[in-house]
Amino acid sequence: MKGKIIVFTGDGKGKTTAALGCALRAIGYGKKVIMIQFLKKGEYGEIKAAIEGLRIMQFGKREFITKAEEEDKEMAKKGLKAAKEALKEKPFILILDEINVAMAMDVLEIKEVLEVLKERGESHVILTGRNAPKEIIEMADLVTEMKKIKHYYDEGIKAIEGLEY
Amino acid sequence: MKGKIIVFTGDGKGKTTAALGCALRAIGYGKKVIMIQFLKKGEYGEIKAAIEGLRIMQFGKREFITKAEEEDKEMAKKGLKAAKEALKEKPFILILDEINVAMAMDVLEIKEVLEVLKERGESHVILTGRNAPKEIIEMADLVTEMKKIKHYYDEGIKAIEGLEY
Repeated sequence: MKGKIIVFTGDGKGKTTAALGCALRAIGYGKKVIMIQFLKKGEYGEIKAAIEGLRIMQFGKREFITKAEEEDKEMAKKGLKAAKEALKEKPFILILDEINVAMAMDVLEIKEVLEVLKERGESHVILTGRNAPKEIIEMADLVTEMKKIKHYYDEGIKAIEGLEY
Repeated sequence: MKGKIIVFTGDGKGKTTAALGCALRAIGYGKKVIMIQFLKKGEYGEIKAAIEGLRIMQFGKREFITKAEEEDKEMAKKGLKAAKEALKEKPFILILDEINVAMAMDVLEIKEVLEVLKERGESHVILTGRNAPKEIIEMADLVTEMKKIKHYYDEGIKAIEGLEY
């Protein structure tokens, strides 16, 4: 059976978090999960220690980008290549974290991502990040929009260690 | 600092999953997480094996209920009592899984849940499930609505082991 394409998008908290929950569940069944993070660096190091069997690769030089630079594109391209390679290992789940943002910001070409998705075989692929492009939504089997109803960030409260990162 | 109240609600996939992701993150930092599941039975046993340090307690006799019966109410009441007890241990996160549904279906009284939330101290409390009552939303610091845009269930595909449960 062809693997499912799952998209967690929207402006609310819970996208990467839900992908991590999926990873946890699958690993509980002894299945292989690989997570590739776009536009991110240095986070989630702790998770590796907490959950044996989750491999995380990061392809970003800083946390937030407002404008795509050549370096961002190069790193994202490497991330996408890593995704292609990862699929050859036939993981149960491949998580492409923040890849939606990378596409929305023209750091990655949608077309190239679609090509990789086509080669997923039986692997399930989870794509996270705001502003998932419509081509991705169309191809997806499951799409959840995490909609912000309320967030304490809006009241000036900073991210909380262990909760947000 | 008072703990945050976080609500994951809506009809889309990702509510319990996001709560699990939060648990994973916190445990990665060596923090204590307790999860109390309402209206659920027999699921997630695998997770315990996967992630050391996550304590799960279940208070339900079957997976889906359409009408609240006396037995459901009794079990949920026990679950709420367990939540109260759990808070005495000052966990970093207390997850009350599917408690929104329990309130929406009159299995639990909203008023009683609010009482427990008031006693959270510095513990963060995550409430999951559809149809979170407005009193809960009002009290919450962070609310994400997981909105279903697309789900393969709608095409007759069943839940997938390792992905959904």
